[in-house]
Amino acid sequence: MSAMPDELSRVLAPVEEGMQRMRDVLTQQVRESSPAVRDMTAHVGRFRGKQLRAALVLLTGEATGNSTDEHATIAAIVEMIHLATLVHDDILDGAQVRRKVACVNQRWDNQVAVLLGDFLYARAFALSTELSSRMCSRVLAETTRRICVGEIEQSTRRYDFDMPQDRYEEIAGAKTAALYAAACELGARYPGGHDETGAAMRALGWEIGLAFQIVDDCLDLVATQAELGKSVGTDVEDGKVTLPVLRVYALADEAQRARIRDVFTMPGLDGRARRLREACDLQPGIDYALARAGELVETAMGRVRALPASPARAALAGLADFVLARRR
Amino acid sequence: MSAMPDELSRVLAPVEEGMQRMRDVLTQQVRESSPAVRDMTAHVGRFRGKQLRAALVLLTGEATGNSTDEHATIAAIVEMIHLATLVHDDILDGAQVRRKVACVNQRWDNQVAVLLGDFLYARAFALSTELSSRMCSRVLAETTRRICVGEIEQSTRRYDFDMPQDRYEEIAGAKTAALYAAACELGARYPGGHDETGAAMRALGWEIGLAFQIVDDCLDLVATQAELGKSVGTDVEDGKVTLPVLRVYALADEAQRARIRDVFTMPGLDGRARRLREACDLQPGIDYALARAGELVETAMGRVRALPASPARAALAGLADFVLARRR
Repeated sequence: MSAMPDELSRVLAPVEEGMQRMRDVLTQQVRESSPAVRDMTAHVGRFRGKQLRAALVLLTGEATGNSTDEHATIAAIVEMIHLATLVHDDILDGAQVRRKVACVNQRWDNQVAVLLGDFLYARAFALSTELSSRMCSRVLAETTRRICVGEIEQSTRRYDFDMPQDRYEEIAGAKTAALYAAACELGARYPGGHDETGAAMRALGWEIGLAFQIVDDCLDLVATQAELGKSVGTDVEDGKVTLPVLRVYALADEAQRARIRDVFTMPGLDGRARRLREACDLQPGIDYALARAGELVETAMGRVRALPASPARAALAGLADFVLARRR
Repeated sequence: MSAMPDELSRVLAPVEEGMQRMRDVLTQQVRESSPAVRDMTAHVGRFRGKQLRAALVLLTGEATGNSTDEHATIAAIVEMIHLATLVHDDILDGAQVRRKVACVNQRWDNQVAVLLGDFLYARAFALSTELSSRMCSRVLAETTRRICVGEIEQSTRRYDFDMPQDRYEEIAGAKTAALYAAACELGARYPGGHDETGAAMRALGWEIGLAFQIVDDCLDLVATQAELGKSVGTDVEDGKVTLPVLRVYALADEAQRARIRDVFTMPGLDGRARRLREACDLQPGIDYALARAGELVETAMGRVRALPASPARAALAGLADFVLARRR
């Protein structure tokens, strides 16, 4: 997750001013009088990323004629919650610590990463309580709960090669799409009202977010670290069976299935994603998963087209396209 | 932290009904439709503990004539935040994982403990947004931020034998007393108003909470696991230099100081707390720290005496006594 791709910058031009205000709020919020915390939050910048969730708050606000002075703050709060989940995703379990020793959490150890994530969550909730309406606190507290439940469910579904697709989508959705959905609902409804548009934008956020996660799952299997700007193959390492693998596994004969399971589960293997690519042809699974992501984005596009024409509407469509076309 | 001591049960009798309602809310809130989460939260019970923070919400509410129907819910929210901090305190850093292998997080691994803590935080905030006043969300979001900053500061002060006492109190206070202070302020002020009484009760909470932490730090050095019902000596293992040790170190000559530092820092030692007791006479440090805790409780007692006489006022005094007298 390095700098923002150029095509995305162009897409987000209609909300560039709001995005800048969002970044200012973010910078100010993670600043902290404690030197120890300041030292750590300075490095949260490495998670900067594409800030798609913040962009969705602003774009859905503009595109539905619901933009307020508080939208940039809401966008910053949504990004802070996203940052908190990223920091906590970096926590290693015991097996990983023993296996990787000095990898993800080189700079700080697990305990400090937990505290930094907690700090970001707390800052986000504290800021939301200062807004004129309680809607933001309510939607985001409930969304955070749902994200946690999704992550917990995912951790219990490791090495489950027979997971039905709707269960996968439920888990991937709770993990990722829930915050996209909340961002879009808040954009279209905050400080309250506009229930019908709000529901449509919430659904749009869910679809775009789930498509994003499915594309992410595909990239983790087949992209290189250089293309993606982050570690790849981590799902296979962590025993997460994602949609493309579920599909390949479903289509495979028993001998192929055994090879796939072995790549995931045999102790002491290195380069499991590479071995998986060698053990089977992943392409039909990737094609299937990307087609599903395409379907989701197409449904979302229908919701975009139902809005009145505007630069923000065009940007929403561009963002949905980007999610599908991105290679990192 | 096993069952509640009998003398504490007697002290809390005036709010027993509220405590039961608090426990009902807590049980209902940590119940979750996801089987994986349900399985985990069922075991949060092992953290049950003394629920002093919840009791303080109810007692300060009663004693200041500010009790509302929502106080039991607020008490449950405060306990949930406390539970979340306990679960996250259980996260092992890399060194600990390598050293202890199968100890604290036997049942679940680090990642799941992070998610369970996040889930409890999110549930607590979500519940607070349903209350009639936003005061609870505001106070607790800010308090949670402060707890995180205190824990982060503490982690950067490991092996700091020259830490001034006020710095120790600031860190121990942010870590523990902040939530006691918030509990008492919410009890006395929620849904808003009563500023002067609120400030006095907030100060009382801080004093009782800091005294509690100081006693905890003493018990960690000198109690046995059987007495305390939890692991002891963890501060020495983790490099946390607490008030009794700071005092002994300050009084020691250079040879003694070197022995103390060695016990904390020499690689590969086991039973560091026992070795510390052998390496120096901890008693003057313990006496000094307990005297400081006594001072704090005495100040808090002055605030209690300023309230009108009532069973709740008597219970507050009893609780303050308990904090000082407890042996677990």
